[in-house]
Amino acid sequence: MGVEFLNIIETDEAIDIIQEKFDECYTAESEIIDIAESANRITFKKIESEIDFPPFNRSLKDGFAIKAEDSYGVSEENPKKLKIIDFLEAGSFTEKTVEPGTCVEISTGAPIPNGADAVVMVEFSYKSHENTDLEDDEVEILTSVTPSQDIGQKGSDVKKGQVILNENIILNPPKIGVIAAQGIDKVEVYRKPKVGIISTGNELLTNQEELRPGKIYDVNSEMIKAGVNSCGAEGECLGIVRDNYDDLKKKITESLKECDILLCSGGTSAGAGDNIRHILDELGEVYIHGIAVQPGKPTILGIVDGKIVIGLPGNPVSAIVIFNVFVAPAIKKLAGYKAEEEHETIKGKLARRIHSPIGRMQYQLVRVEGDTVYPIFKDSGAIFSLASAAGYTKVSKQTEIVEEGEEVEVTLFN
Amino acid sequence: MGVEFLNIIETDEAIDIIQEKFDECYTAESEIIDIAESANRITFKKIESEIDFPPFNRSLKDGFAIKAEDSYGVSEENPKKLKIIDFLEAGSFTEKTVEPGTCVEISTGAPIPNGADAVVMVEFSYKSHENTDLEDDEVEILTSVTPSQDIGQKGSDVKKGQVILNENIILNPPKIGVIAAQGIDKVEVYRKPKVGIISTGNELLTNQEELRPGKIYDVNSEMIKAGVNSCGAEGECLGIVRDNYDDLKKKITESLKECDILLCSGGTSAGAGDNIRHILDELGEVYIHGIAVQPGKPTILGIVDGKIVIGLPGNPVSAIVIFNVFVAPAIKKLAGYKAEEEHETIKGKLARRIHSPIGRMQYQLVRVEGDTVYPIFKDSGAIFSLASAAGYTKVSKQTEIVEEGEEVEVTLFN
Repeated sequence: MGVEFLNIIETDEAIDIIQEKFDECYTAESEIIDIAESANRITFKKIESEIDFPPFNRSLKDGFAIKAEDSYGVSEENPKKLKIIDFLEAGSFTEKTVEPGTCVEISTGAPIPNGADAVVMVEFSYKSHENTDLEDDEVEILTSVTPSQDIGQKGSDVKKGQVILNENIILNPPKIGVIAAQGIDKVEVYRKPKVGIISTGNELLTNQEELRPGKIYDVNSEMIKAGVNSCGAEGECLGIVRDNYDDLKKKITESLKECDILLCSGGTSAGAGDNIRHILDELGEVYIHGIAVQPGKPTILGIVDGKIVIGLPGNPVSAIVIFNVFVAPAIKKLAGYKAEEEHETIKGKLARRIHSPIGRMQYQLVRVEGDTVYPIFKDSGAIFSLASAAGYTKVSKQTEIVEEGEEVEVTLFN
Repeated sequence: MGVEFLNIIETDEAIDIIQEKFDECYTAESEIIDIAESANRITFKKIESEIDFPPFNRSLKDGFAIKAEDSYGVSEENPKKLKIIDFLEAGSFTEKTVEPGTCVEISTGAPIPNGADAVVMVEFSYKSHENTDLEDDEVEILTSVTPSQDIGQKGSDVKKGQVILNENIILNPPKIGVIAAQGIDKVEVYRKPKVGIISTGNELLTNQEELRPGKIYDVNSEMIKAGVNSCGAEGECLGIVRDNYDDLKKKITESLKECDILLCSGGTSAGAGDNIRHILDELGEVYIHGIAVQPGKPTILGIVDGKIVIGLPGNPVSAIVIFNVFVAPAIKKLAGYKAEEEHETIKGKLARRIHSPIGRMQYQLVRVEGDTVYPIFKDSGAIFSLASAAGYTKVSKQTEIVEEGEEVEVTLFN
């Protein structure tokens, strides 16, 4: 029961089709979460300020809240005595009104009392004695101040209704601080798309099993789950399925009930025992089978019941590269990331020549030391190259050789 | 009850003292976690391979496992018939031995049977008829192969005992894949230091309270917690405490029982109502009080019962900058990060002149558009500058003016 690949398509076309199908199948959704859990989540809507900030005129200095006109002409040589009618720390307030000839002693952050319109810093004042009996207390001010001096006006930092954060903003610590300043305890963020992950293959063991002849441990489930999670989605490993048409069809059907997107790996080629293509043809429609890329030609995109099923190559190196290049951007967009927040890249000089097949885009794993880029050449199926690989560099399909010493761009694994 | 600052120290000295005190007080600890939860955790020890990989000689191609010498002299013009004695898919194995004149049909990934020492790709073979009766089945091979051809030798990717991951490696998806390939289900990682966070101030409200005259919402608790978590530690908000010596002393004493490190904000200056310094003097010893930096001069480091207590400025902009510059590196080191994995920086041209005080290192908040860097000038106490701030740029204490158009380095908030 063989099947042909569909037209082998170019990498750019594959990226476009995958994005197009994601856009057709999904609309981003939001959820309301506690601000305490909001780190690294992404705003779904613009957030407008619910308050003026500061919420009142407040003192920017420790000193004395006065009527500015009481200070006109005042200097060290010509000080002026004012009666202290109250003392305000941050967090307290007074009903008293500052009249000409009076003032309120005030701490940084405390609200400016009625009647006062400027603050004289404590450095420009002289109190002859410490007196806890406010009735008798007075201060000499030694400088003139202008109206509004050292007052943070209500709403000067932000006004009620002003946009404080746009949509699609990743909530880092300072931005969480901005939300906290509003007294908000909930925030609307992108819901994490739920991504199911299945590994297929008769040779695969779970980490709960003993190694047996002919078997190897499943790599892709946990690796792809971590990749999915790093895209702002929620990966769930749904298990290992044998290369059996009926078992796999049943597993795919059941899994699609539990997730938004399904990622399978293995069984995506065009040989006997490669069942994914057949099953997706039967259950839905296949839009991609075969990309002109190395590694990872046997990549599949199908849609079943309005949900996307991706078939990744079984080889772990191929699977993670194909995931990063083709699938991650679409998941990240659905999870609220802006396009510019793609994988980080660095540049460096190639330490050894790369030979690349004509006609296929190659993603070559590389190790990076300083600004030197070492290609990692391994058998197909080698896994431990991933231990030292910082990321991969692209070699275009027209290029057969990239020479030692050439500058290359490396997309880093995140 | 005033107190003087200690000697105001330089930023570099402060960073050194903080690191030194962390090194004195703490030894990094590890914990064993499930690989499924290991994303972004940091390896505590070298991890050695527990198996040879591949765990057996395996076929790198679909084809026929033969004795190489059976193919010598063979070509399309001079094909050779071999009897097929078994068929092996990936995951299966056979007890049969390949003798001269025989072969085993084999899929990629399947174990090479005894007696065979090379694989002929299916593309270089011809089977005259499909026959399910293996007794009668035979294949014509059309090419010669050398011993070991298209065989992935046992242990060729990694040998048992070989180091696959070093210590202090952040577990990203490919590295998780490498661990998974071992069949390991647990991994030893750095334990997350537990960091308690307290906000102090009579003016502070929780987000469960209504805004009242003279009050503002607590920003620092959730913001600093998010900052702590981004350092690979586990932040816990322990609440708001009033500016009251006894309450704050009790809270600090109790909190230290629940965490490794305690971060307080507010009440760190040298005025009346600034209690943190007094309390730390009473409970333990103060090593830093006052750094020649703007913003954030009133920063404290004390040690109580062998645990570090940091007093951050109450102003949120100061608090997050001081946290990032002085505290985050020490927490990250304790959490297993290597020093080179510090905050990300970018370079850009300054859009407007910055005036900076002589004698204090200034950390100027900036907004970034493309490669243009806009300083954000706001009142002290302004918070919403954090909404647009990408990070900060340093202005050294000898510099009074950084001119428009100069190239500056920006440390990004993460």
